[in-house]
Amino acid sequence: MAKNLITGGLGLIGTCLARRLLQDGEEVVLFDMQTTSKLIDDMRGRVKIVQGDVANWAQVADAVSSNGVDSIYHLGALLTPACEASPQAAYAVNLNGTFHVLEAARLFNVGSLIFTSSIATYGATAPPVVNEDTAQRPTTMYGVTKIAAERLGDFYHRRYGVNFRCVRYPLVVGPGHTVGISRYARQMIQEPALGRSYQAYVDESVRLPLMYLKDAAWALVCLKRADDAGLKRRVYNLGGYYITAGEQADVVRKHLPHASIEFRPDEATIKVLSDMFRNMDDTRARQEWGFSLQYSVDEYVADFISEVQSNRPLYE
Amino acid sequence: MAKNLITGGLGLIGTCLARRLLQDGEEVVLFDMQTTSKLIDDMRGRVKIVQGDVANWAQVADAVSSNGVDSIYHLGALLTPACEASPQAAYAVNLNGTFHVLEAARLFNVGSLIFTSSIATYGATAPPVVNEDTAQRPTTMYGVTKIAAERLGDFYHRRYGVNFRCVRYPLVVGPGHTVGISRYARQMIQEPALGRSYQAYVDESVRLPLMYLKDAAWALVCLKRADDAGLKRRVYNLGGYYITAGEQADVVRKHLPHASIEFRPDEATIKVLSDMFRNMDDTRARQEWGFSLQYSVDEYVADFISEVQSNRPLYE
Amino acid sequence: MAKNLITGGLGLIGTCLARRLLQDGEEVVLFDMQTTSKLIDDMRGRVKIVQGDVANWAQVADAVSSNGVDSIYHLGALLTPACEASPQAAYAVNLNGTFHVLEAARLFNVGSLIFTSSIATYGATAPPVVNEDTAQRPTTMYGVTKIAAERLGDFYHRRYGVNFRCVRYPLVVGPGHTVGISRYARQMIQEPALGRSYQAYVDESVRLPLMYLKDAAWALVCLKRADDAGLKRRVYNLGGYYITAGEQADVVRKHLPHASIEFRPDEATIKVLSDMFRNMDDTRARQEWGFSLQYSVDEYVADFISEVQSNRPLYE
Amino acid sequence: MAKNLITGGLGLIGTCLARRLLQDGEEVVLFDMQTTSKLIDDMRGRVKIVQGDVANWAQVADAVSSNGVDSIYHLGALLTPACEASPQAAYAVNLNGTFHVLEAARLFNVGSLIFTSSIATYGATAPPVVNEDTAQRPTTMYGVTKIAAERLGDFYHRRYGVNFRCVRYPLVVGPGHTVGISRYARQMIQEPALGRSYQAYVDESVRLPLMYLKDAAWALVCLKRADDAGLKRRVYNLGGYYITAGEQADVVRKHLPHASIEFRPDEATIKVLSDMFRNMDDTRARQEWGFSLQYSVDEYVADFISEVQSNRPLYE
Repeated sequence: MAKNLITGGLGLIGTCLARRLLQDGEEVVLFDMQTTSKLIDDMRGRVKIVQGDVANWAQVADAVSSNGVDSIYHLGALLTPACEASPQAAYAVNLNGTFHVLEAARLFNVGSLIFTSSIATYGATAPPVVNEDTAQRPTTMYGVTKIAAERLGDFYHRRYGVNFRCVRYPLVVGPGHTVGISRYARQMIQEPALGRSYQAYVDESVRLPLMYLKDAAWALVCLKRADDAGLKRRVYNLGGYYITAGEQADVVRKHLPHASIEFRPDEATIKVLSDMFRNMDDTRARQEWGFSLQYSVDEYVADFISEVQSNRPLYE
Repeated sequence: MAKNLITGGLGLIGTCLARRLLQDGEEVVLFDMQTTSKLIDDMRGRVKIVQGDVANWAQVADAVSSNGVDSIYHLGALLTPACEASPQAAYAVNLNGTFHVLEAARLFNVGSLIFTSSIATYGATAPPVVNEDTAQRPTTMYGVTKIAAERLGDFYHRRYGVNFRCVRYPLVVGPGHTVGISRYARQMIQEPALGRSYQAYVDESVRLPLMYLKDAAWALVCLKRADDAGLKRRVYNLGGYYITAGEQADVVRKHLPHASIEFRPDEATIKVLSDMFRNMDDTRARQEWGFSLQYSVDEYVADFISEVQSNRPLYE
Repeated sequence: MAKNLITGGLGLIGTCLARRLLQDGEEVVLFDMQTTSKLIDDMRGRVKIVQGDVANWAQVADAVSSNGVDSIYHLGALLTPACEASPQAAYAVNLNGTFHVLEAARLFNVGSLIFTSSIATYGATAPPVVNEDTAQRPTTMYGVTKIAAERLGDFYHRRYGVNFRCVRYPLVVGPGHTVGISRYARQMIQEPALGRSYQAYVDESVRLPLMYLKDAAWALVCLKRADDAGLKRRVYNLGGYYITAGEQADVVRKHLPHASIEFRPDEATIKVLSDMFRNMDDTRARQEWGFSLQYSVDEYVADFISEVQSNRPLYE
Repeated sequence: MAKNLITGGLGLIGTCLARRLLQDGEEVVLFDMQTTSKLIDDMRGRVKIVQGDVANWAQVADAVSSNGVDSIYHLGALLTPACEASPQAAYAVNLNGTFHVLEAARLFNVGSLIFTSSIATYGATAPPVVNEDTAQRPTTMYGVTKIAAERLGDFYHRRYGVNFRCVRYPLVVGPGHTVGISRYARQMIQEPALGRSYQAYVDESVRLPLMYLKDAAWALVCLKRADDAGLKRRVYNLGGYYITAGEQADVVRKHLPHASIEFRPDEATIKVLSDMFRNMDDTRARQEWGFSLQYSVDEYVADFISEVQSNRPLYE
């Protein structure tokens, strides 16, 4: 039976992925700085939790070695705000951390290493639609660490045969409390679902590529299970919904007619977001490993609302 | 008076640069793993040598702090063969090393940080002519570390105002004993200059962009002294001579009529070299900080031969 | 005005020390992994908080450099249970962390560096009374990291003139929630002060050297302010009260006549504690820098109870 | 068949040990920063050489993992002069290096880990005769790193069952070019053996404990092969000959009647050496694992002379 280590395992994507893998009957070890999160209460007793820091190579090596894992989903990373607050921490966690995971995968012959990069690697100078051939000039430290990690992983595959596979996410949206700069997309659904009004810090025309959390987790599983023969590269763009904040608000209102959503744009934040005002061309993910979204925009909003309303204590 | 720290100071470019800075009346501190090299015998007593490893952050910080340097030329790095022999060493020296230098520049308010990247960052999939907008997908660990370091430096400029400036070199050629895969271009001149025959491991049609060592060192000084107002980016391609091995052989024979140069191509090596079968467009270096070569192809070969013949004991 | 950096600044001793330094009109910067703690609510706005990890050299260097500190109290460390849970984390935080702080003190010419070691450095083979000449053979990873750090600090003083001064604490007791193996001494006071009964996991005859939190913080200030001329060494034992659990219970009952304290000894825990069944001879601290406790046993218990009862929400 | 990794494998003790293990039919992998040394010419083709730096954890892990070693002799370390020149390098190589080796031994289940510490851990305040119970207060950075490494190894044995075994060497003397402060003992034999006169920088009364290189290497093999049941500790003092410089000179003159040995004491060096003016009590090594010297003083000097004269090109 497959045994998976998920770094950043108590994070938003990590817990969603763990739940999915458990459903499929796989074993899951969650590696994280924290050892508790309300997000995993439903999985208590069914997952193993290992406390550790991906910036600590010996803890990473130990987690891989002592648990006999055959797959690693390496999600442990500081997000954009934490990277900007301390680029020094970002270097240690995101860049050294990925080196540690790559080395552990190599030293202990781990079968698969799935990694997540981001639209943030493209940077402000990228064209309106980006694909795997587009030049990447990241603006943020987060993007810098992710592009360096992509290239390292690519090299470890070529040189050592480490089965490194990576997606570049658009903005991932799901119930929770993450504090990224794209949180408007989450809050615009979550707050009304909890019966609260919401004032967005963007304007209605802001358009970014979004992906529902469950599709984001699902994509990792699909890529991990993809036939190697079809893969012509190690890093794939994922698309999602390229919709405006106003369009998403309309979908929310359709499902929650009383939703109160206002737009009070904050120009400084929008400027930072503007790095990501571009669509991700995911043609190759669809062609080379058959990826497709499980949720339409409508279904995503509905499912999100349902999740929040079924688990109010987690999100209030 | 300017006080310069040169990491990798006992290397080929480091010693050439040091000689140039001394000529201009500047102070020079050479930071290197080694403390002796015949290449610096002529500078003994005029440069300070500090033994250290750029992979050791405390040694880097100490060298910068205790010498009160106002400029760093960060040349200390493992070259391609050493990087391929140990990607783990490459990560420590080239990538962590650059992080250490960037941090030291920031912590101790160093006025300028000049860095050298390489054509090797472009990789096998790049088009025949590459400029600063071309996507970089390096094939080698050397290239991976250099692209990551470029992006870090760019970020440190944007975030902290570290005056990071970087060139991407074509293949640098000069008298010496470096063991890079492009050594044919050096040996083809050096061996005949010493009265020996030479069998090249490439064929006559192999065409790579080459730059004479003295121009390579000169470029760093020019970029360091360039007016900030003109610089629209932090990383610049440098061009050089885009000539075939056969063309260079002809120039050598013109200056050394008895030179015996044969071509016995080794296909495996040529395949590795093929990553660099592309021209570097240096339009922006010329436009934004007025760079131009000091040596024509003819002058470069002549000067190279003269250097070797004047200092035979160093090169035999 | 003195400007102090306290690593581990949001910990039990760190917050108590900060409060003391503020009372004396000094400036305080708290460096910690966490940025919030109820323990510092009373100091909000009067201290600066810097988030960082002592295991990250660049964050340490930045905190020292950018805040212009003239004294460092280096308290940031994993305690015994965390060290035993992950010796790899202990190495990174306690040992590398102290190296980072020593280097930062050296590189940025910090006037004083006060460090805290522990009775745990002596280990199970030490005699019943230990002083500065006693051999140290620690049993725990915590003790290993502390003895290594002591010796490093001693060396940095000798070699670089870093004004490293260190105390070896007995078991420090004060209101709070720390989870060390000696927590019985705290809980035996805190629980009855909150009106709860308490079952101790030791027996009445267990005798360890204890020091009240306020005296522990005070000792650091005294050592920092001590005249260098009197100091014949860099590391000093501190004593405290060498009393049994039963004796302390009696003092608690004197102040809280209704206190319910039972003894249900757990032999495994007592065995671990037995490493510390020895008295600390603090003759040299008293002679060389005039240290003396501010609180008698009676006063310590009374003050502890008063603190808890005045700030119930913090401790319940 | 036993497969041994020797870190610092191209050093003086490393090569001597390798020769010994080869004689016993064991396999040997030499791990070192350097890849060539005249000292191993006689073993070419019979040992594997791996280039690497013990300060680089990934290189250590790779060397252990990819060579399937069952014993590690961890000798790789900076000696006293290099440690004093750069305590920062000493920390990285000697302390982090030992941590890396301990972790590799643990992660890859290596059967034995033999380590070498030193009389230098005792420091200037130690009594005239030191044994395993004597307090250690090292004066030098070398001594600081060794005592920390001893304690770490001791802990890894206790916690993880890593079969860590360690000797504390007196001053090791053998043919070669090492530049330690005790080199007088070597030069006083080697120079006359090569027909040269020698001026010692000590006076005739300087008395330090000395051990012949071959006995030093032999001790490691004995300790590695010792029955675990007899070992009551993990770190053992080794003794050697506790003779004065004058006494050794007399033995040299006995074997080389024309030897010209003068004493021109340098007080500064003698002061540094004075840390080691004490005898090592090796009772426990003799009792617990049956160690005894293979060479008397007379035999050691004779064998040393014979080695030098049989291999003049190595030592001239």
